Amino acid sequence: MEDKKRETTELKEEEFTIEGRNAVIEAFRSGKTIDKVYILDGCQDGPVNTIKREAKKQAAIIKYVTRQRLDQMSETGKHQGVIAVAAAYSYAEIEDMFSLAEQKGEPPFFLLLDNIEDPHNLGAIIRTANLAGAHGVIVPKDRAAGLTAVVARTSAGALNYTPVARVTNLSRTIKDLKEKGMWFVCADMDGTTMYDLNLTGPIGLVIGSEGEGVSRLVKENCDMIASIPMKGDIDSLNASVAAGVLAYEIVRQRIGK
Amino acid sequence: MEDKKRETTELKEEEFTIEGRNAVIEAFRSGKTIDKVYILDGCQDGPVNTIKREAKKQAAIIKYVTRQRLDQMSETGKHQGVIAVAAAYSYAEIEDMFSLAEQKGEPPFFLLLDNIEDPHNLGAIIRTANLAGAHGVIVPKDRAAGLTAVVARTSAGALNYTPVARVTNLSRTIKDLKEKGMWFVCADMDGTTMYDLNLTGPIGLVIGSEGEGVSRLVKENCDMIASIPMKGDIDSLNASVAAGVLAYEIVRQRIGK
Repeated sequence: MEDKKRETTELKEEEFTIEGRNAVIEAFRSGKTIDKVYILDGCQDGPVNTIKREAKKQAAIIKYVTRQRLDQMSETGKHQGVIAVAAAYSYAEIEDMFSLAEQKGEPPFFLLLDNIEDPHNLGAIIRTANLAGAHGVIVPKDRAAGLTAVVARTSAGALNYTPVARVTNLSRTIKDLKEKGMWFVCADMDGTTMYDLNLTGPIGLVIGSEGEGVSRLVKENCDMIASIPMKGDIDSLNASVAAGVLAYEIVRQRIGK
Repeated sequence: MEDKKRETTELKEEEFTIEGRNAVIEAFRSGKTIDKVYILDGCQDGPVNTIKREAKKQAAIIKYVTRQRLDQMSETGKHQGVIAVAAAYSYAEIEDMFSLAEQKGEPPFFLLLDNIEDPHNLGAIIRTANLAGAHGVIVPKDRAAGLTAVVARTSAGALNYTPVARVTNLSRTIKDLKEKGMWFVCADMDGTTMYDLNLTGPIGLVIGSEGEGVSRLVKENCDMIASIPMKGDIDSLNASVAAGVLAYEIVRQRIGK
């Protein structure tokens, strides 16, 4: 009996919290399985009522709790009176990204992150990837932030839609994907101004960290090195801003503007 | 005697801390007056040695302290073993921005922030403004984050170079600057795709918050409303990413690409 119970616990899918009103509403709307929602007792405003309605529709358990309890549960410190418990976000496969591109009838467009370990940057980049129409984000196994509550929250719901895959070796993945006809561009200050590169077609955009940039081996495997024009006095853009500027240069070229 | 002492204290310029190695090095290099530098006792690596050298050159006092002391002093929680004390960052005047543009022989390019109260976003936007070659950032008095240590740190040193002005009424400022020949574009989802607008010439780019966007009155005073193409499933980009994408569209048009 004891053994059986332990086994059940071990097999149970890992739970995951989603914090903040918009993130929880997004999670419901995207069809994510929400098990429980903790709501600040007495909260009656529009977004909270939307969450209650969605929870009832999907038979999720609603629990009314104190602010102290929510503060205690919160990983991000920004629950806004709502924390939902869902099945853990899971990593996707690169194949899922190709399927998504095919479904949309678009040439594949992936973002690859090298050395980006900060969960806020990861979340913001997943958010940008979603809005720029990228079909997925690829991170290396050994230097990746997990898909935690902070990532989910800073992705503003994008983690529900944009697949994130984890690979053992980013350089090897780039080589493999080049054989499938993809082109790779990485961001680096000594590159060609992004406006002068042809960034259309099936493309992988590689973003490095602010301090170290893209690692040497990864850079060597890229077909193109793109630079963002820098007119200022300091060194570099924030990694998620740089990702946004480059991703949107790809968007611009794709729509032929 | 007592009265005199009190007066002196009141007149003393407000002090300000700069935290983290790069931020402190940047502050020295930009010519900022640093009074004191607190360094973690025993720290001997390259960046710390650069800071010691700069401090000696500029006759700043160096104090070696424990990690506990630094942790206690730190406002950002990320001092990396170095905290410098400098004269407070001060707001600039809009005239300073026009002078900067004139010095560089460029048409004025300002960023105006409406409803952006988060110091991380403010810092990241000042950083982007600097690198995109904007001549200044304008924030409203009543809803602005102060120029704190967090802003300085997330600006990655840009706060030393890019003037930030505080105005009483953003709409009034826009009206005044329009009389001086400037054009204003604000970001909003229902606007014209940014690639289809003429964003060259003397321009002010108005960025609103993620939730509320640009306020109605400010929007009414703008000459153009620009939208970033959104291909995704979620609502909006992070405010500092949106500012980056739009600022770089202005850069692209300015350099005629």
